[in-house]
Amino acid sequence: MKINVQKCAHMLKEKDNILILTHSHPDGDTVGCGFALCLALKKLGKKARVICADEFIPKYTALIPGCLEMPEFEEEFIVSVDVATENLLGSLADKYAGKIDLCIDHHGTNTGYAKYLLLNADAAAACEIMIKVIKAMGVKIDKPIANALFIGITTDTGCFRYASTTSNTYRAAAELVDLGADNATINRVMFETKTKTYAALERLAIEGMQFFARDRICVITVTQNMYAESGSSEVETEAIAPLTRQQEGVEIGLTIREKEDGTCKCSIRTLDSVNAADFAAVFGGGGHKQAAACRFDCGVEEAKKLLVAKASEILGM
Amino acid sequence: MKINVQKCAHMLKEKDNILILTHSHPDGDTVGCGFALCLALKKLGKKARVICADEFIPKYTALIPGCLEMPEFEEEFIVSVDVATENLLGSLADKYAGKIDLCIDHHGTNTGYAKYLLLNADAAAACEIMIKVIKAMGVKIDKPIANALFIGITTDTGCFRYASTTSNTYRAAAELVDLGADNATINRVMFETKTKTYAALERLAIEGMQFFARDRICVITVTQNMYAESGSSEVETEAIAPLTRQQEGVEIGLTIREKEDGTCKCSIRTLDSVNAADFAAVFGGGGHKQAAACRFDCGVEEAKKLLVAKASEILGM
Repeated sequence: MKINVQKCAHMLKEKDNILILTHSHPDGDTVGCGFALCLALKKLGKKARVICADEFIPKYTALIPGCLEMPEFEEEFIVSVDVATENLLGSLADKYAGKIDLCIDHHGTNTGYAKYLLLNADAAAACEIMIKVIKAMGVKIDKPIANALFIGITTDTGCFRYASTTSNTYRAAAELVDLGADNATINRVMFETKTKTYAALERLAIEGMQFFARDRICVITVTQNMYAESGSSEVETEAIAPLTRQQEGVEIGLTIREKEDGTCKCSIRTLDSVNAADFAAVFGGGGHKQAAACRFDCGVEEAKKLLVAKASEILGM
Repeated sequence: MKINVQKCAHMLKEKDNILILTHSHPDGDTVGCGFALCLALKKLGKKARVICADEFIPKYTALIPGCLEMPEFEEEFIVSVDVATENLLGSLADKYAGKIDLCIDHHGTNTGYAKYLLLNADAAAACEIMIKVIKAMGVKIDKPIANALFIGITTDTGCFRYASTTSNTYRAAAELVDLGADNATINRVMFETKTKTYAALERLAIEGMQFFARDRICVITVTQNMYAESGSSEVETEAIAPLTRQQEGVEIGLTIREKEDGTCKCSIRTLDSVNAADFAAVFGGGGHKQAAACRFDCGVEEAKKLLVAKASEILGM
């Protein structure tokens, strides 16, 4: 059942012992949204905890003071944040699928799996919605919460760059900075700092870039060998996918990452002319208009063939 | 004489036949600021024209409809925008030095060369100040003006990334988007589109990156040979300088660009710990706390030695 911000805030205020689920391979938005909510609930004297199928990345949590101090309790209310489908919960799906009370999300492709759903597909980040929820709960946003929310907004918009960024996004950023968000530090850590291992991986990625359909499709393949050669890992690949779409003339950018078990996943980036979510849906995935993802049970070369064929078809080539 | 926004707006409203000067090697902020003012003055029925020692880059002007339709007239009032010192006017300095009536700027290093100066060193971009001037003149900001102003703000902050970005910057962006600024297109063109020639130049730049002082200094040298090999040119080098500071552990990033005559200029990027404007001042240059520039009469190798020695000294190495 779809609900609005007021109803959502009211519901959260009435509950206690709240378990918050983020999606697997956690990005800045799901992490920021989860911890912002958790910290806000704790300010209301409630017990709350954030969990994830994968480990939280220190790059995010280090910027949210106190976020990892979480109590143990028997959960009474389960909330998912920035999770479009239950299978994006990863291994947590086994335990929690079908049991989620509330979902707060900004994916138009949300499957409505939760009992209650607060959805705004026009929000550039789930954190943009969460600001309103926290304010509606009557909680004053302090620096740790402001940082958590700012992390979500800036990472999901590529630092206010992507087409999903609206005047509301910029206004939310202004408000969070006034409330203490360390925008300069956050943006430097998220976007202006390349570890040596990432820099090495990026160089390999750019060297191996392939173009198809008269350069309208760009493919980057990130293999396990490349992780080994660069000393990098999947955790550092977030900044790779945008590189495909940055190349002149490219309308569809595909970044195929090989997993340890030899299967792979693909991040899709598109310009206005192609709907990335629709493209990903062909392969059972989902996402947004210009950024989406899907998984494959096959290896990278086979996935590449399937993806390039479909992308060429979409472009009418 | 320093003046405030109201006085500046009042002065401009009283004048006609206004010549607007941008700095040489025009960036998005000087161009955006100049054309925003020009278009606003034209909406008040005045004659105005923007000139520059170098050619305007189509990447900017193409996004400001109508900006290049400028009347000829005998100038009665001369305004410089985003120009910290008269020698930054390039070849225009010969004709206009000592004759500038009004300067609108955000460089703390402004030398006060103009008769009247509207300065706000806390503004992330000169365009952030220009919004206030245009509003104080009573001109409604339309799409072309909003685009011009948004270009200045987003390019001077690296798309809202740099430490200079404040809540006022985000708020200004929100306002401009509501007034019609094409934020998605502008940010894509400015930051998310690498021409093939630029991509080739960037690859050469990264391959040639050098580190000094235990990796706390990063140097990129861009030579005329590299332009020839990549098919790129100086016009496309704006995005190179930030690469130096992005490398893990780097506190001072130096990008030395060789000019056609064999002399060179250096872009300096720093973290909080080092004042870039002070560093540049050692070599007769200027700029902001974390981004500055200076010129050399010698070749790139000699300049590199001087720069690395000074940078090492600053870092206490």
